[in-house]
Amino acid sequence: MEYQFSDKMVNMKPSAIREIFKSLGTPGAISFAAGNPAPESFPVSDMARIGADIFANQAVQALQYSVTEGYPRLREQVRKRLLDKFGIGTENDDLIIVTGGQQGIELSCKVLCNEGDTVIAENPSFIGALNAFRSLGARIQGVELKDDGMDTEALEKCLRENPDTKMIYVIPTFQNPAGSTTSLQTRKEIYRLASKYDVIILEDNPYGELRFAGEDIPTIKKLDTDGRVLYCGSFSKVLSAGMRIGFLLGPKELIQKIVVAKQVEDVHTNIYFQMLCSRYMDECDMDAHVEEIRALYRKKCGWMLECLDKYMPSCVKYTRPEGGLFLWCTLPETIELTDFVMAAKDQLVFVVPGTAFNCDESAPSRSFRLNYSMPSMEEIEKGIRILGELVRTMM
Amino acid sequence: MEYQFSDKMVNMKPSAIREIFKSLGTPGAISFAAGNPAPESFPVSDMARIGADIFANQAVQALQYSVTEGYPRLREQVRKRLLDKFGIGTENDDLIIVTGGQQGIELSCKVLCNEGDTVIAENPSFIGALNAFRSLGARIQGVELKDDGMDTEALEKCLRENPDTKMIYVIPTFQNPAGSTTSLQTRKEIYRLASKYDVIILEDNPYGELRFAGEDIPTIKKLDTDGRVLYCGSFSKVLSAGMRIGFLLGPKELIQKIVVAKQVEDVHTNIYFQMLCSRYMDECDMDAHVEEIRALYRKKCGWMLECLDKYMPSCVKYTRPEGGLFLWCTLPETIELTDFVMAAKDQLVFVVPGTAFNCDESAPSRSFRLNYSMPSMEEIEKGIRILGELVRTMM
Repeated sequence: MEYQFSDKMVNMKPSAIREIFKSLGTPGAISFAAGNPAPESFPVSDMARIGADIFANQAVQALQYSVTEGYPRLREQVRKRLLDKFGIGTENDDLIIVTGGQQGIELSCKVLCNEGDTVIAENPSFIGALNAFRSLGARIQGVELKDDGMDTEALEKCLRENPDTKMIYVIPTFQNPAGSTTSLQTRKEIYRLASKYDVIILEDNPYGELRFAGEDIPTIKKLDTDGRVLYCGSFSKVLSAGMRIGFLLGPKELIQKIVVAKQVEDVHTNIYFQMLCSRYMDECDMDAHVEEIRALYRKKCGWMLECLDKYMPSCVKYTRPEGGLFLWCTLPETIELTDFVMAAKDQLVFVVPGTAFNCDESAPSRSFRLNYSMPSMEEIEKGIRILGELVRTMM
Repeated sequence: MEYQFSDKMVNMKPSAIREIFKSLGTPGAISFAAGNPAPESFPVSDMARIGADIFANQAVQALQYSVTEGYPRLREQVRKRLLDKFGIGTENDDLIIVTGGQQGIELSCKVLCNEGDTVIAENPSFIGALNAFRSLGARIQGVELKDDGMDTEALEKCLRENPDTKMIYVIPTFQNPAGSTTSLQTRKEIYRLASKYDVIILEDNPYGELRFAGEDIPTIKKLDTDGRVLYCGSFSKVLSAGMRIGFLLGPKELIQKIVVAKQVEDVHTNIYFQMLCSRYMDECDMDAHVEEIRALYRKKCGWMLECLDKYMPSCVKYTRPEGGLFLWCTLPETIELTDFVMAAKDQLVFVVPGTAFNCDESAPSRSFRLNYSMPSMEEIEKGIRILGELVRTMM
C-alpha cells in the first residue's frame, strides 16, 4: 500500500548526527562528531555495586511499573542538588523525571504549542531539540547566536513579528553546538523580553555542571519571578547517557500537564536506573565525581585548543569553551563547508557540518562542530592535524 | 503568569488508573485495579546475574548513547521469536525497539495522524492508547466490542462515515479491559475492511504469549499481505514492566518514519536493559519462563472465576478469559457503577470503572475491570467476597 504520513512528520529526516554515528565503525576513524560523554567518565564500579544490591534487595520495586512523576527519593535529591548548585526551585516549582533531556524538550513543546505556533531558538542550536519542535509541527524562528548569547535586538524583533510565539528555547551555558556561554546581561534581557511578550522560556542545561574554566553565571531559571521558565537537566553527561534519565523543573501547573503528556508517551522512565541514580547520590561522592569529569574535559579541551593553535591556519576561527563538550570552528569564505566535511570524512575524520544545527534547514553555513570528550588525546592531535592540512590544501 | 496549553493537551487529565495506583499504599487495601504483572513473574536471579556481567564486561556499551532503532542483537532475537511463535515478519517488515508498548502506540499515531484525523478503536479499549491518541489531537471513534471482537458491521459503517480514518487500533488477544479474544473470522473481516478503506491497523498484543486455555488464533499481522499492519509487543508482561522495553514490527517504510519520531522523543531506549533482555533470551529458557507465568495466571484467573461463581449474585455477568491479566464484570441495571466503585473503595477494594475505558469519555458504563495477576490468592477470595456482598446490599 501507499503510506500517507502526518503533515508534521512527512518531511522529517533522521538526525544527521545519529546517521554519522552509525558509520563510525570503520577502523582508524577519528570522530569529533559525537555528543557522547567520555566513556571513562562513567562511574562503573559504583554503579555495578549499587545495581547488584538493587537486584538483591529491591528487585520487585525496580522491575515493576512505577509512577509517571519519577522515583520520589530521586526527585527530592535532584531538587536539593539544583537548589544547592544553582539556587533554583521554589515552592511554586515541581520536578518530573524524564527519559533523558530529549524527552523533557519534546514534552515541553507538546504541552505548549499547537501546530503552526512559533518556537524561537538560538541559531545554530541543538539538532535534537529543533527536530522535536518540527515533529510537533511547530515553526522554528532562529535568532542569531552571538559570542555572549542571543542577539536580543533580533529576539525582540522576532517576538514582535511572531505573536504566536509560545516558547523561547535556549542553551545558555556551554551551548550546543557553539560551545559559548550567554552573559548574565543577555540572560536578564532574554527574561525581560519573555515577560514583556508573555512567553515561556525552556532553558536547556545538560552541561551546566561541566564548567572547567571561568566563573559560574546564574541560570535564567534563577531570574524567574513570574514562573515562566522550564529548566531541563540530565544525568547523561555526569553518570550515563545510555540509561536515559533527565529531569524538568518548572512551575507546578506546567509540570502537572507534562506528567500527563509523559504518561501517554512511555508511562514512566526506567525505574531501576532511577533507583540507581538515587542511591549513587546517597552513597557516593557526586561532587568529587563531577570534579573528575571537569578535570578530564579541561585536559581534553585544552589539548584540542593547543592542537588547533598549532595545526590550524589562522583563517579558521574557533570558540574557546569554558565547559561542556563542544567547540565550534568557522572556515574562511573561500572554503566550501560540504567539500571540507566530505574530504575530512574521506580521511576518516568525522565532524558535523553547521548546516545540521541551522534553524532554517536550507540556510548555508561555514562552521562545523568538534567534540573533544570522546576522542583520545592521540586522536585529537592526529585528527586536528589532518583537518589543518586539509584547510591548507583547500585554501 | 497564566498558562496557555496546546489545544490537544488542554483537556487531558491523568489516567484514572495511574491515579488509583497512587492511592494503593493504604494498609489492607486489595487492588484489582492495576495492570501490573505478578511480581513473582520477574526472573530476578537470572536478570541479576546477567546484569552484573554486563557491568563487569560490557559497561561502556551499556552506559553510552546508542542507536535509535535498538540493540541490533535484540532486534534479531525478537524478530526470530515473532516468526517462531506467531509466524509473522516478512522481508518487507522491520522492527524497532521502543520504550514500552505505550511508546509504540503513541509513535504509530504520531506518524500517521494529523490533528482531527480519526482513529477507530474497540469500545471499551486500553486507556493508555486512547489517551495517547487524544494527546495527539486525533478523534477517537469507538466501535462496540462483542464477545468475538469488534462489531464489524459497525466498523464498516464507521469507516464509511469517517473518511479521514487513518488507523484502526485493536487488541485482538485477551483484550484490555474486556479479557475477550477476537475470533479468526472477525480478524479476517477487520483486515478486509482495512484493505477496502485503505487504512492502517495497529495490532496491540502485549499479552499474546500469556494464553493459559484454549487454542492460539493467528494474529492480524499474520493475515497482512498489503503491508498495512503495525504489530506492537512488549517485554513488560514476560520479563519486567519497569524496564520499559517494547517493540513494533511493521512495513519498513512505516518503521523508518517511526525511528525518526522516536529519535526526537527519547533518542533510544535504555540500552543496558536492551542488552539484558538480549542475553536473557540467549542464555535462559524464555519458553520455560513464559510457561511458568501461564501456569501462575491460569491458577489465579481460575481462582478468581471460582470466587466469582461462589460469591457473586447471578445478576452480575463476567468474561471467562483464556489468557492475559483481566476479566470484565457487568453490573445489573439497578446498580449505579460509580456508587458501586466508591463503596468498594471505602471497603479498600479497588476496581477500575468501565467509564475509564470508554472511547467517549462522557458515555456511561455498567462494567468494571478486575485484575488477577497482582493480588494474592487470599486477596482474590477476600476481595471478591466483599464485592459480592456489596452487590447484594445494592441490588
